[in-house]
Amino acid sequence: MFIKNGWYVAAWGHEIGRELTQRWIIGEPLVLYRTQAGEVVALEDRCPHRRASLSKGRLVGDAVQCGYHGITFDCTGACVHVPGQEKIPSSMAARRFPVVERWQWVWIWMGDPAAADESLLPDFHYNEAPGWVATGGCIPVEANYQLLTDNLLDLTHEAYVHGKTIGNSAIVDVPIEHHVEGNEVHVQRVMRNTPPPPLFKRVRHFEGNIDRWQIIRFNMPAHISIDARGLPAGTDDVSRGLRWFSINSITPIDERSSLYFWTITRCFDLEDEALTKLIGDQIYKTFMEDVEVLEAQQIMIETDQRQQPDVSIRADSGTISARRIVQKLVEESNSTAVRQVASRVAG
Amino acid sequence: MFIKNGWYVAAWGHEIGRELTQRWIIGEPLVLYRTQAGEVVALEDRCPHRRASLSKGRLVGDAVQCGYHGITFDCTGACVHVPGQEKIPSSMAARRFPVVERWQWVWIWMGDPAAADESLLPDFHYNEAPGWVATGGCIPVEANYQLLTDNLLDLTHEAYVHGKTIGNSAIVDVPIEHHVEGNEVHVQRVMRNTPPPPLFKRVRHFEGNIDRWQIIRFNMPAHISIDARGLPAGTDDVSRGLRWFSINSITPIDERSSLYFWTITRCFDLEDEALTKLIGDQIYKTFMEDVEVLEAQQIMIETDQRQQPDVSIRADSGTISARRIVQKLVEESNSTAVRQVASRVAG
Amino acid sequence: MFIKNGWYVAAWGHEIGRELTQRWIIGEPLVLYRTQAGEVVALEDRCPHRRASLSKGRLVGDAVQCGYHGITFDCTGACVHVPGQEKIPSSMAARRFPVVERWQWVWIWMGDPAAADESLLPDFHYNEAPGWVATGGCIPVEANYQLLTDNLLDLTHEAYVHGKTIGNSAIVDVPIEHHVEGNEVHVQRVMRNTPPPPLFKRVRHFEGNIDRWQIIRFNMPAHISIDARGLPAGTDDVSRGLRWFSINSITPIDERSSLYFWTITRCFDLEDEALTKLIGDQIYKTFMEDVEVLEAQQIMIETDQRQQPDVSIRADSGTISARRIVQKLVEESNSTAVRQVASRVAG
Repeated sequence: MFIKNGWYVAAWGHEIGRELTQRWIIGEPLVLYRTQAGEVVALEDRCPHRRASLSKGRLVGDAVQCGYHGITFDCTGACVHVPGQEKIPSSMAARRFPVVERWQWVWIWMGDPAAADESLLPDFHYNEAPGWVATGGCIPVEANYQLLTDNLLDLTHEAYVHGKTIGNSAIVDVPIEHHVEGNEVHVQRVMRNTPPPPLFKRVRHFEGNIDRWQIIRFNMPAHISIDARGLPAGTDDVSRGLRWFSINSITPIDERSSLYFWTITRCFDLEDEALTKLIGDQIYKTFMEDVEVLEAQQIMIETDQRQQPDVSIRADSGTISARRIVQKLVEESNSTAVRQVASRVAG
Repeated sequence: MFIKNGWYVAAWGHEIGRELTQRWIIGEPLVLYRTQAGEVVALEDRCPHRRASLSKGRLVGDAVQCGYHGITFDCTGACVHVPGQEKIPSSMAARRFPVVERWQWVWIWMGDPAAADESLLPDFHYNEAPGWVATGGCIPVEANYQLLTDNLLDLTHEAYVHGKTIGNSAIVDVPIEHHVEGNEVHVQRVMRNTPPPPLFKRVRHFEGNIDRWQIIRFNMPAHISIDARGLPAGTDDVSRGLRWFSINSITPIDERSSLYFWTITRCFDLEDEALTKLIGDQIYKTFMEDVEVLEAQQIMIETDQRQQPDVSIRADSGTISARRIVQKLVEESNSTAVRQVASRVAG
Repeated sequence: MFIKNGWYVAAWGHEIGRELTQRWIIGEPLVLYRTQAGEVVALEDRCPHRRASLSKGRLVGDAVQCGYHGITFDCTGACVHVPGQEKIPSSMAARRFPVVERWQWVWIWMGDPAAADESLLPDFHYNEAPGWVATGGCIPVEANYQLLTDNLLDLTHEAYVHGKTIGNSAIVDVPIEHHVEGNEVHVQRVMRNTPPPPLFKRVRHFEGNIDRWQIIRFNMPAHISIDARGLPAGTDDVSRGLRWFSINSITPIDERSSLYFWTITRCFDLEDEALTKLIGDQIYKTFMEDVEVLEAQQIMIETDQRQQPDVSIRADSGTISARRIVQKLVEESNSTAVRQVASRVAG
């Protein structure tokens, strides 16, 4: 169950260069590369001739030459050469996917190219903003992408999964507030006068309690930013506090595996590279704790012969709203597809 | 095709302690642990909240705390804590499975708890009886559990598979006797004045022929004990003979893999630990010869596009009776389930 | 989709001896061995008793004894012994497959034995002809067998896949001629005054251009011989030219994996063993380049949710003809099977 008309992160910008890179998104194979002018191109990784994998071929200027029979496609997917014949068959074209490169990431639109709308990109500008420094990565996870968005929309789990880094029991006692705006979900938790979790202490050397904010925003299909703040309790002293964004985008490879793109981008001690490394290492470890939980959960769900319904609790309100939005968009897209087929048949 | 209302061996008693242990039985994941008082508990290894794997969580006293969101279940499966809220949803409960610990093994009832009946346990008391000493293990096998019960109910194969340890050609010439009592199958073979197989000779130093008995009893779903005796031919001299029970229980993991729990328990040379080790090693080797045959057989059955029917021979009478009993019990249980659904719908 | 009434290469002759060898062909497991007189025998690798794998058993003279319960089959598949009983059940027989050993290879007929017709063997006598010396092998490939026959029937790919050995761009500019004779496909390409590809140069030390012939013949189900010639351009001087046959037979293991049997058999420098080794090594490398392309293509085809139709070009005419022949023979065979069932029901 995937939204097609939506943006997915296909890669970090630095991953895509002048060689052909294969990536699978919502079950589709893609070949990605950068033109000589630096634009990122994404085509379906199947030659329309005999479905050979184009990413096994080579770049000829800005065109992709299939490594099997040499049929060549430009960066719009149009076929520009069929070896041994002048005439190019009219249906010989590789499917092209709209791409935008922004905020360090390469975004791809998996649905109708005519509907590709950059205003639907989530605002992840902190990944690359003056006065902010980001560290991050990409983790393959053997779990459905929605298990990851659930995870990020209910941070109660930090108390149980991440006690060594960003979690402690304080989080459990404070209920979340949540509201929905169109296709966005907002979840917020404010913890007053609470002990700082271990990583906060290492990073900002708090001596006493802090006031802690988690302001989470979900955008479809699977983008989540978390505005995380910890200030000395009862102060507004940002200069002695922690503020970072945890920026997350989950790209489904298929129904049971995902790529988890993430950054932590902070607005303090910008020059401190050791700190950047510390945060990167600790957050990676933290997310790998999630991966262990989520991969086990995936197995439990897919082996559940009775397909038992979930039993929800108060902390799930954000995750339930986000799943409803995705469900609604998938259904709308399916019924649009049915209407299009119907009108084509009627016409 | 599994019997649900029956006892399966979930583990050796010594395998279950104060840490959470996962095990799969007839396709269901279980979490097993021992309470502070020493009782073994088995719950479905799925948190009812979001189906996280409870065995990834932790014990808090005698309760299991889910490692994801901290929801906690006591050893009856009742939920005793939902972090962040007072009220516990009425359907928040982990499924509990009846457990009995007996004769060194932990037994689990996979069906209706109200129907759990200890009188249906097979009599395996020789695993832990005064005057008897047992050695054994647990072997994972990539084969359907009924291929293992077939194997144990027709020991003719010893001549072809186990020529180095417990088999020789004598076995082939003597037909089996068999009869059925309720849901029990008895198979017996008595070989008079026959050469002892290699392991018998190593263990009891026979100088001439022996009289040899194999008295096999099958109990549903997949329990088999073999009363094996070898006495100097023409004598009743148990003191110079071999007598042991081969006690076997096959636990289906799923339709194509199984756990094979086994012991050899003998009533001679009880203090001889080297002998215990010799028997354990030799029988393990013997059973691994079976594993090789059975795993190949499993592949041949599941790849058989024509699903050719078996061609039976005289030696199969015991295995056929046992399969009929299992078939009948599975069908009864299915039709009971259908009746229950029908009466719920009618009511 | 497999032709049953056809010959497949089961093995190189030297692979089959006095031990039992398992091989899978069109989804069927076979046990192969050689009788004391040197005849190759092929039986279904399932004991009719309980479908144990006969290849795990042993040879007793020219008979196969099942390694599980000792039931024994002669080299016609007839059961000659059931341990423990005199009477042999009438349906106790192993399925036998017709076998022919010819031109270094063991050929097996996978369909109705009564229809086995040696005149349907492709003429591969150059594998073992006076004045010719062959080198070759067998490569397992994770791809449908027809992707391999496609590959061999359109050698345009040599320019893109095999630039280091047998390919260069000359091939692209010359169109193929093709015609169909019954169930045979002939494809021919003649390249005049063209640079020799790298391996041709290494083997025959050409100093200038060559005239180059590729004369390809396809026989069902999946046999392809290529008569390859390269002579100094404008001459008929075979003594200074290259001529070899590339002889290929693809045996489907199942729908997505195959065994690729191949030889190169040449009629020059027969005694030069270093040359034989050079050709063997270089052609193996060349075919492994194909394997990489074909295994990627297989994945792209089997993951294609839309099952997009191929877009064909001029060079595909031979592959399309060959696929039509296979399609027709499979359909004929299916409708024959339906008629046989119908007449049995009617009768």
